[in-house]
Amino acid sequence: MALAYDPLFISSDKALSAFDVASPPHPMILTQDELKRIAAYKAVEFVESGMVLGLGTGSTAKHAVDRIGELLRQGKLENIVGIPTSKKTQEQALSLGIPLSDLDAHPVIDLSIDGADEVDPYLNLVKGRGGSLLREKMIEGASKKFVVIVDESKMVKHIGGSKLALPVEIVPFCWKFTAEKLRSLLEGYGCEANLRMGEKGKPFVTDNGNYIVDMHLEEDMGDLGAVSDAILRLPGVVEHGMFLDMASTVIIAGELGVKIKNKQHTNSSS
Amino acid sequence: MALAYDPLFISSDKALSAFDVASPPHPMILTQDELKRIAAYKAVEFVESGMVLGLGTGSTAKHAVDRIGELLRQGKLENIVGIPTSKKTQEQALSLGIPLSDLDAHPVIDLSIDGADEVDPYLNLVKGRGGSLLREKMIEGASKKFVVIVDESKMVKHIGGSKLALPVEIVPFCWKFTAEKLRSLLEGYGCEANLRMGEKGKPFVTDNGNYIVDMHLEEDMGDLGAVSDAILRLPGVVEHGMFLDMASTVIIAGELGVKIKNKQHTNSSS
Repeated sequence: MALAYDPLFISSDKALSAFDVASPPHPMILTQDELKRIAAYKAVEFVESGMVLGLGTGSTAKHAVDRIGELLRQGKLENIVGIPTSKKTQEQALSLGIPLSDLDAHPVIDLSIDGADEVDPYLNLVKGRGGSLLREKMIEGASKKFVVIVDESKMVKHIGGSKLALPVEIVPFCWKFTAEKLRSLLEGYGCEANLRMGEKGKPFVTDNGNYIVDMHLEEDMGDLGAVSDAILRLPGVVEHGMFLDMASTVIIAGELGVKIKNKQHTNSSS
Repeated sequence: MALAYDPLFISSDKALSAFDVASPPHPMILTQDELKRIAAYKAVEFVESGMVLGLGTGSTAKHAVDRIGELLRQGKLENIVGIPTSKKTQEQALSLGIPLSDLDAHPVIDLSIDGADEVDPYLNLVKGRGGSLLREKMIEGASKKFVVIVDESKMVKHIGGSKLALPVEIVPFCWKFTAEKLRSLLEGYGCEANLRMGEKGKPFVTDNGNYIVDMHLEEDMGDLGAVSDAILRLPGVVEHGMFLDMASTVIIAGELGVKIKNKQHTNSSS
């Protein structure tokens, strides 16, 4: 196995099989996408036949959905029902033959697997660069277990620490007014608020017909629960990308191995 | 003047002119619509030339918009800019020749006038039976002064006390799931949650493309700020119809006269 990877962190054959796909014949640096796949495959080890599964959105979650489809095809998983967090994931899952349903039919989900843009030391997340934060929050909030999969570049000391944005979904009606209210609310944290643009110079539109304002933060916001409530109280805001106290487990793939962090236990374990 | 009306509560000729329109030739009971118009005309006394005005939605606010149009036509008001809280009010104001703009161009509004479905003793409101609660909250929340106009049937001891519903605007995606979360959140208060229906047996759709769930409450919810935050934390919720600590003045028209209640002063004054 790759010397750049510490096998001590690997807990099972299934996880090792992730490396078999990459199959490095000699010491090498793994790409970010390979790390994402390693974390994703590790998360799918939590999946059992008969489960209702929340299927995440984005480049890391895509590997998990692919892997679930593969295990179904191989007969190693059965009777799975997938609840996709976006139209894009719905299309991917359909193409893989994963049976799908929705929250109305399955208001309780056994396990959700999804990526994140940032993870802080308390397992609070920032999500939403893919634009699906609202459906993700509905589905992952309804899950008994929520496993987050990231490469190590996503680990931050505080929300905003990666210089990536905190996305906020807002109604299109008078969006400039709402964006300015958001900027003003968070200006103590060095915040800039930018409307996310899509194709042809038009605003990006979410699956729910709303806009996204990306909040670029510089400083630690401190009490995230209080900031969350203050954002949600602005009338034009639909949802924001902070997922506080929601992740049960975070799987982190890095050059030195896979770390698993569980809620209320900040120690790494294999 | 009408004996059923106490002239002591009337503070100016402008208010009296409201009665001239009704012109009761002998003691009579005023209709609910006449009471609404009396409150509306009284509120328009607060309007001065040059103001940016939030224009409310609903049967009571309609009288205020009509009156503003009339005073503009008579040249008694000039240089008014109206910010309509719904497409319906926008159409009414345009037909009256009231110049219009929006929150993006006018993020600070001098005065908003609007009706309410319920007003509690602390001037907290329930709004949204007209379905425009989100735009109303954005616009009225951006107003230096917010004058609420009601007939006396709207005064309640606590939110939900009139048996009318507290409306909550939610995203259409998996609305049953969100409606059930809302019902469950408020079930301690005897709550039923019903999707508001529109024409042809289809769900009512707001100006923002969302649905409305009407929450029928029986009991006093106590700490309304805490309930508000809990509702807003549900990911499928866009906004709710509780307007807490927003009204500066409430004008109440009743059989015994017009009462004016100001924020932080619960005594009536003329």
